[in-house]
Amino acid sequence: MEKNFWITNEAIEINDVVNKVVRPEAGAVNTFIGTVREFTKGKRTLYLEYQAYASMAEKKLEEIGREIDQKWGDAKTAIAHRTGRLDISDIAVVIAVSTPHRKDAFEASRYAIERIKEMVPIWKKENWEDGTLWIGDQKETKSYKENTPIGEDHTND
Amino acid sequence: MEKNFWITNEAIEINDVVNKVVRPEAGAVNTFIGTVREFTKGKRTLYLEYQAYASMAEKKLEEIGREIDQKWGDAKTAIAHRTGRLDISDIAVVIAVSTPHRKDAFEASRYAIERIKEMVPIWKKENWEDGTLWIGDQKETKSYKENTPIGEDHTND
Repeated sequence: MEKNFWITNEAIEINDVVNKVVRPEAGAVNTFIGTVREFTKGKRTLYLEYQAYASMAEKKLEEIGREIDQKWGDAKTAIAHRTGRLDISDIAVVIAVSTPHRKDAFEASRYAIERIKEMVPIWKKENWEDGTLWIGDQKETKSYKENTPIGEDHTND
Repeated sequence: MEKNFWITNEAIEINDVVNKVVRPEAGAVNTFIGTVREFTKGKRTLYLEYQAYASMAEKKLEEIGREIDQKWGDAKTAIAHRTGRLDISDIAVVIAVSTPHRKDAFEASRYAIERIKEMVPIWKKENWEDGTLWIGDQKETKSYKENTPIGEDHTND
């Protein structure tokens, strides 16, 4: 796989992401892995569904990589985000950032996940025990009406 | 493998460490991977050698896990550290911490690597182009005379 930033319907292999950033100049790789949590504020999630505007999402992930380059200089970033149905503990996103020294790897990786949630067109549908809810953006500040069918009402912005 | 904290002479598989901490309660896993960097302040490393007082090192890694439990509450930690000869880009250490939310995972993982360098009896021998140097502790504040043979002069305090 050539791309360092990709959206996929398949299970993400952590090594596929980490291997993109390991290099002789790096002494540190920080990896953030987002997994499906069963309970959120006491509500039980059965599974999640992620949808993405994939081509735009990959462009936005690349943009985050460029932002990290600018802010941290000698950093290399790779990000994979999954779409489709994810069960409890499945991996939704893997970020890997390598830098010469560890402080920068931690900071840049944290930056990446915050930016993903701010700017990448990926939507999440919570399937709880007692209903469903589309989360309109990943900051979870907007939400749409319950039981909205997949593919409706979830344009970018 | 039953242990969550271990010293090994074999290559560390990142998944072996991450799989110890993935769980339904967690939405975030932060992983720190330390790799062998080729250049440090302009000096070229050919390879490194790590030695550990293994049984004590594993106890100290467990202690770090307990410290994280106390500080962050709902966190699960696993750490593997390699010994022996490591070539450029080889993995020396993998830390994985899972928590319900990402902020804690980043913080606890960072805490773990700082504590490893402070308190775990592992010694590193730099094999540079122009000589060798034992690094007496992982904070790299103490160093021993050049060309000390492996196994001499490097007891645990």
